[in-house]
Amino acid sequence: MQNTNHTRWAEGKLVSFLIATLKGISQVMLIENAVTGLIILLAITTFSYSLGIIALLSAFIGTIVGVIGGANKESINQGLFGYNSVLTGLALTLFLTGPYHWIIALVGAALAALLTATMMHVMKNTGIPVLTFPFITVTWFTILASYRLEAFRLTSRFVPQDLSNWQLDIAGKINWLEGAFDGIGQIFFIEGILSGILLFIAVFVAGWKLGLYAVLGNVVALLTSYLLGGEHTLIYRGLYGYNAILAIIAVSATFNTDHRRFGLLSGIFAACLTVPFAASIATWLLPYGLPALTMPFVLSTWLFLGAKKVLPNL
Amino acid sequence: MQNTNHTRWAEGKLVSFLIATLKGISQVMLIENAVTGLIILLAITTFSYSLGIIALLSAFIGTIVGVIGGANKESINQGLFGYNSVLTGLALTLFLTGPYHWIIALVGAALAALLTATMMHVMKNTGIPVLTFPFITVTWFTILASYRLEAFRLTSRFVPQDLSNWQLDIAGKINWLEGAFDGIGQIFFIEGILSGILLFIAVFVAGWKLGLYAVLGNVVALLTSYLLGGEHTLIYRGLYGYNAILAIIAVSATFNTDHRRFGLLSGIFAACLTVPFAASIATWLLPYGLPALTMPFVLSTWLFLGAKKVLPNL
Amino acid sequence: MQNTNHTRWAEGKLVSFLIATLKGISQVMLIENAVTGLIILLAITTFSYSLGIIALLSAFIGTIVGVIGGANKESINQGLFGYNSVLTGLALTLFLTGPYHWIIALVGAALAALLTATMMHVMKNTGIPVLTFPFITVTWFTILASYRLEAFRLTSRFVPQDLSNWQLDIAGKINWLEGAFDGIGQIFFIEGILSGILLFIAVFVAGWKLGLYAVLGNVVALLTSYLLGGEHTLIYRGLYGYNAILAIIAVSATFNTDHRRFGLLSGIFAACLTVPFAASIATWLLPYGLPALTMPFVLSTWLFLGAKKVLPNL
Repeated sequence: MQNTNHTRWAEGKLVSFLIATLKGISQVMLIENAVTGLIILLAITTFSYSLGIIALLSAFIGTIVGVIGGANKESINQGLFGYNSVLTGLALTLFLTGPYHWIIALVGAALAALLTATMMHVMKNTGIPVLTFPFITVTWFTILASYRLEAFRLTSRFVPQDLSNWQLDIAGKINWLEGAFDGIGQIFFIEGILSGILLFIAVFVAGWKLGLYAVLGNVVALLTSYLLGGEHTLIYRGLYGYNAILAIIAVSATFNTDHRRFGLLSGIFAACLTVPFAASIATWLLPYGLPALTMPFVLSTWLFLGAKKVLPNL
Repeated sequence: MQNTNHTRWAEGKLVSFLIATLKGISQVMLIENAVTGLIILLAITTFSYSLGIIALLSAFIGTIVGVIGGANKESINQGLFGYNSVLTGLALTLFLTGPYHWIIALVGAALAALLTATMMHVMKNTGIPVLTFPFITVTWFTILASYRLEAFRLTSRFVPQDLSNWQLDIAGKINWLEGAFDGIGQIFFIEGILSGILLFIAVFVAGWKLGLYAVLGNVVALLTSYLLGGEHTLIYRGLYGYNAILAIIAVSATFNTDHRRFGLLSGIFAACLTVPFAASIATWLLPYGLPALTMPFVLSTWLFLGAKKVLPNL
Repeated sequence: MQNTNHTRWAEGKLVSFLIATLKGISQVMLIENAVTGLIILLAITTFSYSLGIIALLSAFIGTIVGVIGGANKESINQGLFGYNSVLTGLALTLFLTGPYHWIIALVGAALAALLTATMMHVMKNTGIPVLTFPFITVTWFTILASYRLEAFRLTSRFVPQDLSNWQLDIAGKINWLEGAFDGIGQIFFIEGILSGILLFIAVFVAGWKLGLYAVLGNVVALLTSYLLGGEHTLIYRGLYGYNAILAIIAVSATFNTDHRRFGLLSGIFAACLTVPFAASIATWLLPYGLPALTMPFVLSTWLFLGAKKVLPNL
């Protein structure tokens, strides 16, 4: 083989690997689009330079695990080994502290890719996708492990609490503008209106329908959580919104390939349901001080995608 | 088409829908029999007029979800989309309070039907039935959500407790007569001897063997819980009995279609096992103040029905 | 049939049943070898005479459940119905107290065999083995039930604790020699250097490679738990080691039948991962005062065996 030919082949490999990595970032939002991935990366980087690097490295690591492990090329190229790693890398970097926390975050990213593979296999027969369950599990396990291993140092934001001492206090004004843009930011643990706008752009780039769904999901969640009497501080910080955005995209777009009769309605219901689900999961995790992460989205989406197999009109 | 023909067709539809709804009520006891469903409805109504209405509406909603969703007709007509909705409607009406609690209960009933569909799909390959797991999950989630959302107001009966502060106190006399009839009533959250007698009649109407199994299951549970030293107040209120009744009907009758060698014995063991399972689950749920509901029945029945696939003599 | 013929036939049956029972004991270490089973039984008996009897009886009961239930002969002869029963019998004998605790332990052993059958069926399609999950579940359930049923009396070693009051204290010297031999002993809840040596011999008898893996797993776990800052008292008592030994044998040997490219490396990773998993599970169980048992091994092994199906190079 000629040298230039070999260089070109290697360049081709590198480019397709980079595209898979960027798609891994976009798959966090259930979108397979390298440009979307790039804009998301930009949004994260404007919020924090180091977080941007972690996001890229994590997507990279997840994809590498797929390649070395010998996964089928289609899954790798769709970015399916990347998105759980991206979220795990970001979460552990933010949740842990100490000099080596980013190493633990990157090991966690590799582990998330491994668990993605395991769950892909276990759930294959059901035809229901893995979603972000591997990221949630790895992150929860790492936080729990920190109580027993000195090398895992937790930031002070996680406070285990007794449910018997819990008092709900929903007082406080809602800043609806913040709520509108922080919801989408919370998917990537970032805040601020600029990041939010960039993330909405990233979704619209992949398709105007997807963008509208994202807006709709956020509005639905803001209204549902306000009407059901959720804590106002959580609502305006977007903590009731990010799960709804993901759920409506998943149910009405990504996994609605055969255009069911009630496809959009199912997605809106799924988005609404993430609100009480978020409340339930937060209560359940209270004694451990764990965050709900994207678990409400996962449960609501699994519920609808599974039900569709038996109720084909949904 | 002639007008009368069309009317007859619509009448036929309505009748078959009503029968499916009543069968949905009877399926709570793993029985497919509209008359049994009607007598159960009567038993609930004698205990509380409004609960009777909720039970009927919930069965109705569950069946409607199946019809609109486009489920296969056989499942709908067997009442398989109704029974989880009935239980969820009843439980949430009783457990929640406030002016809109019955709306939440009926939404919960719809959700239970949806989750039934999801679980039917996921468990299809195992050949193990869904049982009342969807009802349990929806009810637990709703109770947990109430700690975070003001619209969900819990009655005062649920008290989260630390296991480290727990003291077992089994003192108190057992009223065996109450124990004999409250066990079957607890399946539908109702108490009293009249309701209990009506429920036993409902089962006997479906078959004398089923009736005997129900009696046997209750006796087995009363004895087991007494011998193992369960709390007497729980025993005589039937709280150790209702799971055993369901388990023996499920294992020895409903899902014992091929008449295994140890069919009855398996059912009796399954009924016994619901007692320690009820104790375990109650301990596990203590920090959240959640009720065990029919989870002991579900676990014990899954255990035996699954084991039968590998141990064909059971 | 002649009398001697019949006697020979019965003798043959008895011998093959005894071999199945001994293999049931060896399967705790994922090894199918009657001699290994015998040496393990010896190791348990040198630690405690009565525990030895319980181990033998439990293996016996588990195998009997398989035979009476009508399981396929191959599974029975491989000892697959015995190992969960052995562990359950040992654990419940040690964890419970009172005059009848050994009866509960033996009933638990039978139940573990039943649950093994259930899980074999449920997991059949995934091609992932049941491992010791049935033992873990039955033991946890029994401990939890003891808080509600007077017949189940718990020893004082289980103390439910609030995570909010938890303080990590890793101080204390590590006795590396004890750590080297107690790790393997903890698999069977026994301590002491003699028992440890006998258990290592039992593994080496089944194959020198298996023996080396066991040693390697133990070393890996000791180093990982020390480097990650685990509690020193746990480390030298072998409580971070036993899961690693099982995980490396499972991933690199027992279930590595087709000699994957990274077979040994996967096993070493799986062994490392049992350390943070043990920490996470211990935190999660803290409010219930439950022991982690072999859950870290089960999760780590499931993770790798499942991932291998999608990542064939592992």
